[in-house]
Amino acid sequence: MPLDEGQKREIAEARGQSATTRRPTVPALEEILFEPLPVLDHGFVRVVDYMGDDAAVVQAARVSYGRGTKRVSEDKGLINYLMRHRHTTPFEMCEIKFHVKLPIFVARQWIRHRTANVNEYSARYSILDNEFYLPARAQLAAQSAVNRQGRGEVLEGADADRVLDLLKRDSEQAYADYAWMLNEDEKGEAADPARSGLARELARMNLTLNFYTQWYWKTDLFNLMHFLSLRADSHAQYEIRVYAEAMLDVLKRWVPMTHDAFVDYRMGGYSLSAKALAAVKLMIDGKPLDQKASGLSAREWRELMAALGRE
Amino acid sequence: MPLDEGQKREIAEARGQSATTRRPTVPALEEILFEPLPVLDHGFVRVVDYMGDDAAVVQAARVSYGRGTKRVSEDKGLINYLMRHRHTTPFEMCEIKFHVKLPIFVARQWIRHRTANVNEYSARYSILDNEFYLPARAQLAAQSAVNRQGRGEVLEGADADRVLDLLKRDSEQAYADYAWMLNEDEKGEAADPARSGLARELARMNLTLNFYTQWYWKTDLFNLMHFLSLRADSHAQYEIRVYAEAMLDVLKRWVPMTHDAFVDYRMGGYSLSAKALAAVKLMIDGKPLDQKASGLSAREWRELMAALGRE
Amino acid sequence: MPLDEGQKREIAEARGQSATTRRPTVPALEEILFEPLPVLDHGFVRVVDYMGDDAAVVQAARVSYGRGTKRVSEDKGLINYLMRHRHTTPFEMCEIKFHVKLPIFVARQWIRHRTANVNEYSARYSILDNEFYLPARAQLAAQSAVNRQGRGEVLEGADADRVLDLLKRDSEQAYADYAWMLNEDEKGEAADPARSGLARELARMNLTLNFYTQWYWKTDLFNLMHFLSLRADSHAQYEIRVYAEAMLDVLKRWVPMTHDAFVDYRMGGYSLSAKALAAVKLMIDGKPLDQKASGLSAREWRELMAALGRE
Amino acid sequence: MPLDEGQKREIAEARGQSATTRRPTVPALEEILFEPLPVLDHGFVRVVDYMGDDAAVVQAARVSYGRGTKRVSEDKGLINYLMRHRHTTPFEMCEIKFHVKLPIFVARQWIRHRTANVNEYSARYSILDNEFYLPARAQLAAQSAVNRQGRGEVLEGADADRVLDLLKRDSEQAYADYAWMLNEDEKGEAADPARSGLARELARMNLTLNFYTQWYWKTDLFNLMHFLSLRADSHAQYEIRVYAEAMLDVLKRWVPMTHDAFVDYRMGGYSLSAKALAAVKLMIDGKPLDQKASGLSAREWRELMAALGRE
Repeated sequence: MPLDEGQKREIAEARGQSATTRRPTVPALEEILFEPLPVLDHGFVRVVDYMGDDAAVVQAARVSYGRGTKRVSEDKGLINYLMRHRHTTPFEMCEIKFHVKLPIFVARQWIRHRTANVNEYSARYSILDNEFYLPARAQLAAQSAVNRQGRGEVLEGADADRVLDLLKRDSEQAYADYAWMLNEDEKGEAADPARSGLARELARMNLTLNFYTQWYWKTDLFNLMHFLSLRADSHAQYEIRVYAEAMLDVLKRWVPMTHDAFVDYRMGGYSLSAKALAAVKLMIDGKPLDQKASGLSAREWRELMAALGRE
Repeated sequence: MPLDEGQKREIAEARGQSATTRRPTVPALEEILFEPLPVLDHGFVRVVDYMGDDAAVVQAARVSYGRGTKRVSEDKGLINYLMRHRHTTPFEMCEIKFHVKLPIFVARQWIRHRTANVNEYSARYSILDNEFYLPARAQLAAQSAVNRQGRGEVLEGADADRVLDLLKRDSEQAYADYAWMLNEDEKGEAADPARSGLARELARMNLTLNFYTQWYWKTDLFNLMHFLSLRADSHAQYEIRVYAEAMLDVLKRWVPMTHDAFVDYRMGGYSLSAKALAAVKLMIDGKPLDQKASGLSAREWRELMAALGRE
Repeated sequence: MPLDEGQKREIAEARGQSATTRRPTVPALEEILFEPLPVLDHGFVRVVDYMGDDAAVVQAARVSYGRGTKRVSEDKGLINYLMRHRHTTPFEMCEIKFHVKLPIFVARQWIRHRTANVNEYSARYSILDNEFYLPARAQLAAQSAVNRQGRGEVLEGADADRVLDLLKRDSEQAYADYAWMLNEDEKGEAADPARSGLARELARMNLTLNFYTQWYWKTDLFNLMHFLSLRADSHAQYEIRVYAEAMLDVLKRWVPMTHDAFVDYRMGGYSLSAKALAAVKLMIDGKPLDQKASGLSAREWRELMAALGRE
Repeated sequence: MPLDEGQKREIAEARGQSATTRRPTVPALEEILFEPLPVLDHGFVRVVDYMGDDAAVVQAARVSYGRGTKRVSEDKGLINYLMRHRHTTPFEMCEIKFHVKLPIFVARQWIRHRTANVNEYSARYSILDNEFYLPARAQLAAQSAVNRQGRGEVLEGADADRVLDLLKRDSEQAYADYAWMLNEDEKGEAADPARSGLARELARMNLTLNFYTQWYWKTDLFNLMHFLSLRADSHAQYEIRVYAEAMLDVLKRWVPMTHDAFVDYRMGGYSLSAKALAAVKLMIDGKPLDQKASGLSAREWRELMAALGRE
């Protein structure tokens, strides 16, 4: 996450400013406001602005004139109730804005979540930096043999070396040719005055998908949790999961009551189908039961047993 | 807009609080934060929270590390450019939350704007107050003879008296029967212990559409402007337009540069069709032109002439 | 559901037409196309158009060139998999359009589901019919004593009579005055030429919330199921639930595989929180457990026990 | 657009099917249903399904029981009126679904339009084909000197050769290494049994942004026109504009009345700001006027003069 001097100064300046406000304010979040939280080899997430707090959820649920909060235990109970019964609108009343730097292939997964506002750095208008993602050796996983969408064991030794070499070499080559085609020096003038540079909107197509892009991404608390429930999940690809995990920490600082309810009811929970519910009832009654008798498919049965901790 | 003592105290308390924040803050908006701005006979709009300012628009457009602003003239030029070319995403990076009290028939128009978050006071769960909208005499318009969707001249004398009487009488009757069916006293106990009260979710159906409801309504700056462009327009129904006008004043306090660009490019502008553009070209060249020759329909021609101030 | 002769003829004509298409077609749905399915005393739901079928879900999931389906068992397995793992996008590839006639207070609940396209009959532009909802006696429920959002026992005898009388009387009075204020005869001319009619956009405010409105409502299969999971649920208000139930039958005709998966995984399922999952594990192991020890709130414990059929 | 034999056969089969339907059907669109319309060197757009027609717009606007159409001239007038006054909901009542094959950098621009349903081919789950975009020589534009977001003159001779060589070489190298890392033969088995293949979700990051992806993309008529107004515009990047142009032809086949209104009021129209409107009024009155006096910025003045055809 190599910020240059200018960027560091800009962030320091933003952090140095302060003002008085009547708005709800969250000191634990203010503490890290604007600070880049490092993710992957060159990426980051940083909170750029926020609106609301746990009390704002309560306030909206009560459509109240004042802050709307009562005793802590009542507020917590209400938030738990809203989460359990999947009331979404009170959580939509809080908003957060991130500045994220991330590899393009991660950005392509991320953007599927449509209920958010996005402003991406434009490679049509500007020139991308020479920064690309290389997996750490521990992340260099083989294709899973059982799950077409998953990772298997980690590659090692010469195989791992070779993969890292290829990724690095191709990225470097792609960027070198991108720069050559652009033909611009640091001042935006022709590096080689004898020829014209290719239009930026065309040259960018030569970059590989591990190059970093960045965007402002703003969403409400409900949709943030929906994003996290999918992307902080163990089935998510590692490279997006680490962003979600950093944002889960942000959630905890921002709205601790909502965070706890989210972890209890969403992240740590399990959804039973009608058939799985029937199977659980039988198991509680001590009735003998196997996959066949349950009516569940082999895969569902496996998932259910795993969730119940019965290997 | 008769707030009761408890509500006044809650608002005063909220206004009395203040905290230090690193976030962008807008003093002109803080000034009126939480204050109900009266609209119609019992309604109001009040800003409950906000996120971002003019600089945040600029910052997002530049995907910058710091505040992103440069000289005032450059920021203003950029905002004008974004507005003119209908770039929407940078304006989506600011957010505002209102608490609105409004007649149900206005709420039904309002809710058509789907790109917003809404939390409405629930008449399924709670009891609505005895407050309904009665038009001021100046607003008691007859049906327009030429425009099925518009208002004509104002009713006067006995006709106006009679309409106001009917509206008042029916509203009062509806509420009295609503209350009787609920059969609840102020403590939520049976007013008449000899009988059961009708379920709230049923009793509410007896209220007329001029009763007041209230909600929290949160939207981003782009969608707020879209709402205002339709609802602060002269073709909008008066009863929703007055809300939009109050919010236009809020816009001016909040993001003055964006407000000015909005007024210039949207509110005060005019969209020419291809045929209208051709007609304007001919008119500039001093060519004689009438509706027939223009290829415009009678109605479009009239609208164009009105926009050009040629009666 | 008293359709007039003109409406019946229009529907019959639409049903009488037929054309040849290369598009996926669902005979079981074609059978009832355009037919009003009666709901409540004057309402209906009717399917006006649709796009896609079960195979279209499979086709989109596979991004295939042809119809994309394989053997029935494979298609069914894929649809179950998509439903279980909450993949939403393939289900978004089917679309359905309804024409619905419904009381205004039901419309106000319904419209909270924002991810749909709506075109409502405009009482600003047109005149509403004299049709209002009166609950059947079996639906005349008292307020629940334990659940502020629910219904208790059914009112009976004189209490029920009185409520129905009030609802009927107020609705009739409201409409009579609405009509008087409008002052329009059937040809749209002044009923009483000596006075002007009040603008339609104003007069409508005198109607009660049980008057019927109607709209075209179009949504995709995923959002339809989301709507049904909330509104065909036993906690939904009866007056909207009956609409959802009629639409659930439509779902079964339209996409039977998706319908079955929906009923198994959503309607009949149950979501365990982390704490509830832990409790279930203990129960399966035959460990003694009560609410206190489970860490669940009294209410959650009650809900869990109910779901597990342990009174 | 090299479809393989299997794909051709699948499409032919889909085209060969036909069924009887009561739904509105558009013969001109049926004609090309499922057929790939070639775009760029390997891409295509093909219509996979549709719902509604011009009459459905009219029907929704009238919330009618039958087809809702009257005389052609009245329907056309209504559609023009809806377009002119920016009524969006009736146009949202039609839906269309495309299968699109497009370079990844185009897909990244496209996806910014959020009001659509998308199902993309997953490179996490499957293997991408060896197909990448190479611009035709006529499209090999230099960076514009005046517009940071635009193209200048076309590169020629050796410069053009060199750029094409680099693009081709880097793409081929990227794919060769992608394939080597995957280590899968055509049957999905290890090409080199002595080593494990890298997980697909990782290997894909080595591809350049000109590789082709594909998706199902479904949207309503209103949002399709919004997309086309931005992407069939002369300021759009060529590589996405050609897709939009192919879809504009589809629009004409599907909803000819709406298409014509769209071309007149949107594509060929021009939006005047308040200041530009004032300037136009002065020009019509024959008053002398220059940029300074108009209050318009230099750029706005230039754009206005261009729109008015005054160089």
